[in-house]
Amino acid sequence: MRKGLVLVVSAPSGAGKTTLCRRLLSLDPEISFSISYTTRPPRPNEKNGFDYFFVDRDTFQKMIKEEVFLEWAEVHGNYYGTSLEQVKEAVSSGKDVLLDIDVQGAFQIREKLGREAVLVFVLPPSFEELERRLKKRGTEDQRELEIRLSAAKEEIAKAQAFDYLVVNDVLEDALDKLYSILKAERQRTFRRSDLIMRFF
Amino acid sequence: MRKGLVLVVSAPSGAGKTTLCRRLLSLDPEISFSISYTTRPPRPNEKNGFDYFFVDRDTFQKMIKEEVFLEWAEVHGNYYGTSLEQVKEAVSSGKDVLLDIDVQGAFQIREKLGREAVLVFVLPPSFEELERRLKKRGTEDQRELEIRLSAAKEEIAKAQAFDYLVVNDVLEDALDKLYSILKAERQRTFRRSDLIMRFF
Repeated sequence: MRKGLVLVVSAPSGAGKTTLCRRLLSLDPEISFSISYTTRPPRPNEKNGFDYFFVDRDTFQKMIKEEVFLEWAEVHGNYYGTSLEQVKEAVSSGKDVLLDIDVQGAFQIREKLGREAVLVFVLPPSFEELERRLKKRGTEDQRELEIRLSAAKEEIAKAQAFDYLVVNDVLEDALDKLYSILKAERQRTFRRSDLIMRFF
Repeated sequence: MRKGLVLVVSAPSGAGKTTLCRRLLSLDPEISFSISYTTRPPRPNEKNGFDYFFVDRDTFQKMIKEEVFLEWAEVHGNYYGTSLEQVKEAVSSGKDVLLDIDVQGAFQIREKLGREAVLVFVLPPSFEELERRLKKRGTEDQRELEIRLSAAKEEIAKAQAFDYLVVNDVLEDALDKLYSILKAERQRTFRRSDLIMRFF
């Protein structure tokens, strides 16, 4: 049996990462979503235990001390973290895990898991398009919008350290690329020595 | 513009590599086939300048001396070689090149091109199935069949050094995996720094 891989998808806010991730999960039965913990308040339609586990700051800080997290970060004033136990369980049972996390978190995962993790950075087609998408979403006021755009620039500068880049211009194209990355990584020789061993 | 990549596909004789390669070429307009030179006699239906460039041993040896080849090898008593010029031209014009070559050749390519080349090894589902396919093809006599089967075992032992493994059990599945590898490798960050540079 192959061991699962950890697919990390990061992107500036508004690049369409969440939609891409949801679509990928619906295409493939062998990958499941790791639900993050966060201290940010739920957006309309977000459900606890589905989109995130929503917890307060005290609880989150206690969990950091107890080393519950594979990675955690503070982004735009809110905490986000991935449960180590959740990821371990899935991977050791041969399931791939999708992590929808920020750049800092992605680098923590790379450090802890090495090439067991696959890091994909989703780029918007342009800054202008990113701004347009953020405005359309309408969940941010002008100050928040500016914070996000300046954060986007910093994040994109760090994309060089990711394994793969996917531009999210036409959703279906980006999805095909992302799914190809998942399917290709499953065929990597270092993950599939079982396929050779069968012959000896 | 992105630079083309070199997709090297190797497999034991009878694993179905040639069919897979032809199908991949028909799926994707950005990859083209590098036509090898060989001293082996054409099989029925093989055409000069399409399947191979068929040359005699003297010509081939002269070409080796003139450093015409990116890689060359002697397999089952015949020479096979890839034109350096042909590959260079395609890659620098942003086209990917498919090389259908043996294990020795694949390692020469890795040495010369490093990670510009992507090495895929196609495995048969089992030795029994490989033997069945070789017999069905009926182009080999019993002695040749035994040579090919024992060569297959040696080649599979070297598959560990390839980047990816694809088992060719159901053709459509194997093709989907191979195509995914091509599409994923095109998105590798080290090939696509142009996508980040646009933002700065």
